Amino acid sequence: LFRLVPSAAVVKGLNTLSAWALQNGLLAGKQVFLCGESGEAKQAVAHLATKLGLTVLDKGSLSAARELEDFPLKLFPEWRLPLSIAVGLSAFFFFYLLIRDVIYAYVEKKNEISYRIMVALANKVVFPIVALVMLSLCYLPGAIAAFFQLYRGTKYRRFPNWLDRWMLCRKQMGLVALGFAVLHAIYTFIIPIRYSFRHKLISGVVDEVKNNKTTPSYFDNTEAWGTDSFISLGILGFFLFVLLGLTSLPSVGGSLSWREFNFIQSKLGHLTLFICTAHGYIYGWNKFLRPSTYKWYTPPGYMLCLIVPSVVLVLKLLLLLPCVDRALTRIRQGWERTQPKEMDEIKTTNL
Amino acid sequence: LFRLVPSAAVVKGLNTLSAWALQNGLLAGKQVFLCGESGEAKQAVAHLATKLGLTVLDKGSLSAARELEDFPLKLFPEWRLPLSIAVGLSAFFFFYLLIRDVIYAYVEKKNEISYRIMVALANKVVFPIVALVMLSLCYLPGAIAAFFQLYRGTKYRRFPNWLDRWMLCRKQMGLVALGFAVLHAIYTFIIPIRYSFRHKLISGVVDEVKNNKTTPSYFDNTEAWGTDSFISLGILGFFLFVLLGLTSLPSVGGSLSWREFNFIQSKLGHLTLFICTAHGYIYGWNKFLRPSTYKWYTPPGYMLCLIVPSVVLVLKLLLLLPCVDRALTRIRQGWERTQPKEMDEIKTTNL
Amino acid sequence: LFRLVPSAAVVKGLNTLSAWALQNGLLAGKQVFLCGESGEAKQAVAHLATKLGLTVLDKGSLSAARELEDFPLKLFPEWRLPLSIAVGLSAFFFFYLLIRDVIYAYVEKKNEISYRIMVALANKVVFPIVALVMLSLCYLPGAIAAFFQLYRGTKYRRFPNWLDRWMLCRKQMGLVALGFAVLHAIYTFIIPIRYSFRHKLISGVVDEVKNNKTTPSYFDNTEAWGTDSFISLGILGFFLFVLLGLTSLPSVGGSLSWREFNFIQSKLGHLTLFICTAHGYIYGWNKFLRPSTYKWYTPPGYMLCLIVPSVVLVLKLLLLLPCVDRALTRIRQGWERTQPKEMDEIKTTNL
Ligand SMILES: Cc1cc2nc3c(=O)[nH]c(=O)nc-3n(C[C@H](O)[C@H](O)[C@H](O)COP(=O)(O)OP(=O)(O)OC[C@H]3O[C@@H](n4cnc5c(N)ncnc54)[C@H](O)[C@@H]3O)c2cc1C
Ligand SMILES: Cc1cc2nc3c(=O)[nH]c(=O)nc-3n(C[C@H](O)[C@H](O)[C@H](O)COP(=O)(O)OP(=O)(O)OC[C@H]3O[C@@H](n4cnc5c(N)ncnc54)[C@H](O)[C@@H]3O)c2cc1C
Ligand SMILES: Cc1cc2nc3c(=O)[nH]c(=O)nc-3n(C[C@H](O)[C@H](O)[C@H](O)COP(=O)(O)OP(=O)(O)OC[C@H]3O[C@@H](n4cnc5c(N)ncnc54)[C@H](O)[C@@H]3O)c2cc1C
Repeated sequence: LFRLVPSAAVVKGLNTLSAWALQNGLLAGKQVFLCGESGEAKQAVAHLATKLGLTVLDKGSLSAARELEDFPLKLFPEWRLPLSIAVGLSAFFFFYLLIRDVIYAYVEKKNEISYRIMVALANKVVFPIVALVMLSLCYLPGAIAAFFQLYRGTKYRRFPNWLDRWMLCRKQMGLVALGFAVLHAIYTFIIPIRYSFRHKLISGVVDEVKNNKTTPSYFDNTEAWGTDSFISLGILGFFLFVLLGLTSLPSVGGSLSWREFNFIQSKLGHLTLFICTAHGYIYGWNKFLRPSTYKWYTPPGYMLCLIVPSVVLVLKLLLLLPCVDRALTRIRQGWERTQPKEMDEIKTTNL
Repeated sequence: LFRLVPSAAVVKGLNTLSAWALQNGLLAGKQVFLCGESGEAKQAVAHLATKLGLTVLDKGSLSAARELEDFPLKLFPEWRLPLSIAVGLSAFFFFYLLIRDVIYAYVEKKNEISYRIMVALANKVVFPIVALVMLSLCYLPGAIAAFFQLYRGTKYRRFPNWLDRWMLCRKQMGLVALGFAVLHAIYTFIIPIRYSFRHKLISGVVDEVKNNKTTPSYFDNTEAWGTDSFISLGILGFFLFVLLGLTSLPSVGGSLSWREFNFIQSKLGHLTLFICTAHGYIYGWNKFLRPSTYKWYTPPGYMLCLIVPSVVLVLKLLLLLPCVDRALTRIRQGWERTQPKEMDEIKTTNL
Repeated sequence: LFRLVPSAAVVKGLNTLSAWALQNGLLAGKQVFLCGESGEAKQAVAHLATKLGLTVLDKGSLSAARELEDFPLKLFPEWRLPLSIAVGLSAFFFFYLLIRDVIYAYVEKKNEISYRIMVALANKVVFPIVALVMLSLCYLPGAIAAFFQLYRGTKYRRFPNWLDRWMLCRKQMGLVALGFAVLHAIYTFIIPIRYSFRHKLISGVVDEVKNNKTTPSYFDNTEAWGTDSFISLGILGFFLFVLLGLTSLPSVGGSLSWREFNFIQSKLGHLTLFICTAHGYIYGWNKFLRPSTYKWYTPPGYMLCLIVPSVVLVLKLLLLLPCVDRALTRIRQGWERTQPKEMDEIKTTNL
């Protein structure tokens, strides 16, 4: 029986490493902790691990297994970066929009709309904006990596360190983005219950009746199409977003083959990004050219947040051009512009 | 350690097969791929697999394990059928309702309501309809199988091929149905934000005030009960639906015993189907006999979509009749109307 | 290969036991069923299990493994208690509120508001109330246990039986609470579609226009802040609640280290409880002192349901006081007020 134990420990040790990392042999030099009763079994495991390019630290007998479990003293190390990016982005956009919307209204029009801080600012702007930017930050490193590979003409050189770190926290980045998207969705569902929504509706009607206007009886077909497409795209994007999140559950991801997982994450992910970006563009479709949207010469939040996704989509489009795509595929299959490496390494990285 | 590897590979090979299939020995003839370093271990695995009625193809040494992973060249093979059924149903109902609602209104009343295509058609009709039909298609094959067993008086004969294929993709069918149900739910939550909803509300009020009607002050108690039960049933059905989806997550399902899993999927599943069907019936409770609902002599979409679920529920009710139920239980415990088979086979299938 | 089988069976046997239980050595006396072909392997497993303080019942050869699977004849035994608590609480609050709201209105004001039973009663009161009470019942035993440990000055004495049972079903209790919270959320999203909501809105406007009141044009800033914070807290609490639920999925929980899991469940759990309680307090912020809320001298439901959470939060706050916290930490690290036990036991419980 004890032959089973070390393997479990290794799985424990390995489960913090991403499949992408293993695939690309990026882990050379990383440490894996091992422990177990039978020296023979440990050796076999260590052998396997070294083959994968890992440094094995033997932590001794079975009783050390507990210690190994407690090893990640830092809680959620791989969530640090995405979470701090999310907090930073949220803070930036919050203050940007606070100044633009609430303070601007107060200074220029003497309106007290501080109540907006709570829900409107959070919903209308911060959550969707951060979700979209974080989502695009998930797919930006992949595009950058591809350009690196194209430029260098080989896939056997390591990416710069910052790109490595970025690529290794894409999963967490995506899940944080999903969290913000969920909050955005809930806030949207809840809008009609808000006091200010109902107040606006009621006072709008009352105004109208008193002034005997007949505007609202006129049904604006373009407006209906606009809002309905806006909403539909949002729903579809959210649905795909949640699907991405579901496949990244360990048990669901584990039941897919590697190709299926990659297909969903990469193809469906870019589709999600595209739909969510379109959702953002439609929101502002008739406001881009209106000067009144540029209060104090600053663009509204949703315009700022469309920059990164648009860049990612354009880069991806470039990569999908037939000639670029062919070159990239060749490079990834092990072809090199310069000189061939020894077969052994190709095999390892081709995993 | 290497003794572990082949077993992992087998698990890999087996995890595409459903428990139902294993249980019923339907897999005779299917191929399982095997690989591993130690010939001894492989033999043991092959032995086990052959006992289960599987054809084992030895794929050679450990290095072939990678190949084995890449084997399902076709992406998501078991999702093909459910997805194409879903697409087919969606397309059919979309065009059916496009003709009935939008084109009818355009032809007969000269109303331009094309904006409806986007959200109203999708929400009010296509999503819930497809979700309900797909859900009932999940439970129809079980009922058909039971009638087959009753008719043949044995459980040792294989079902016809189409039924087999159908039964093996019920999980995917259910999950696709869940996806449509989720979309239906989100669309429903979003309704009050839509331009046309607010427009209708406002212009309704304005109209009323102008014409000095007093209708809306009258609170229709039946209507309130009707819509509230409709909504409650929808929420409850959706909740159970999501619960079904949760238990079909590999990790959750794996932590349940087989009996618990079956209890949830079968009992709760039929309850879900019942509640969702009731939700549909209440929607149309006061419209079934009104001639104005039959535009161009065609029934509205929700009537069409209630046919399959109703049939499934009636069949299930028949199967629950004491006498039928007793006969079925006896058959499933291995009893046969004709002649007894050898004990060995009974054991295998009784698993 | 067969060496693997018994271990799998043990895992099967052990997976109904919670980590907390194993950690605290509470399982002494519990029975674990074992089976397997090789006597040697079984012995090793039995040895391990006995070390963990479990009573091992050998169930014989491999063919008995099936039986072992079928053993939990009672479906979902650990869900019994939480579900019956949930049903009991729901029934109590349902009738309490039925009397207070519907029957009171009928008796005193001759209003027929029975339609409220369906959605309003369920949403406004029963679901959120039960969710909050169940959530606090999740965290109450932890606080009680801490006080027990403080009072006894040791952690090596078993808790009374009722506390044990309570602590072992906290997971299920939390998930049932989550279910109610989800229902509450869906009901809230659906409110604006309800007939009575729209009716109230419309008749409100019509009334106003007729009587030429100008109240609604006045925008109540305090009200806007109040409802918006109420909603924001609700959303945040719900989000954290769902996060708790996600980490309790076996596959997600399994990919976290024990410390991370505990951090989320305990710290984030108490935060969730705090936010949800605040959500409840804000709901009634301006109603606590109004005599009209005390119909027939009974407090409204949301006041009743705030009692337990408030108690839990106060207890937790006491435990967080520096001096208490220090004493507790010392006790949990194995320190005892009376006499030291043998090292062996400390090791076992320190796991
Ligand atoms: C909700 C959500 C959940 C997510 N969950 C996960 C998750 O669980 N796991 C995860 O990893 N990501 C996850 N992500 C992040 C993201 O979806 C994935 O990282 C996705 O695979 C990125 O796709 P890509 O095409 O940009 O990158 P990749 O497919 O990684 O490709 C990026 C670059 O790597 C190089 N490359 C790729 N394949 C090869 C190869 N075979 N040989 C050599 N070089 C190669 C190429 O240069 C390529 O351009 C999640 C995102 C979201 C929004
Ligand atoms: C959201 C969602 C998720 C789903 N996830 C899953 C999933 O993960 N896995 C899955 O399998 N299904 C899944 N389904 C599909 C469905 O819920 C299940 O297949 C369900 O068990 C069908 O129940 P049943 O009673 O109709 O069929 P079954 O329980 O399969 O019975 C069908 C017929 O098989 C025969 N039969 C059953 N038991 C025996 C026996 N012991 N011996 C001989 N014959 C027998 C009988 O003729 C019986 O009538 C899902 C559905 C939904 C909506
Ligand atoms: C949606 C949802 C899902 C949930 N899922 C789960 C789940 O999957 N699993 C689960 O267990 N709970 C789950 N819960 C319940 C709850 O979140 C956890 O039980 C949580 O850990 C309780 O935290 P606590 O601080 O009150 O208790 P604990 O952390 O258990 O501490 C309780 C008491 O135990 C004693 N104690 C704790 N640690 C030690 C120690 N090292 N040595 C000696 N004594 C100690 C102390 O007296 C302490 O006060 C869930 C709750 C919700 C709402």
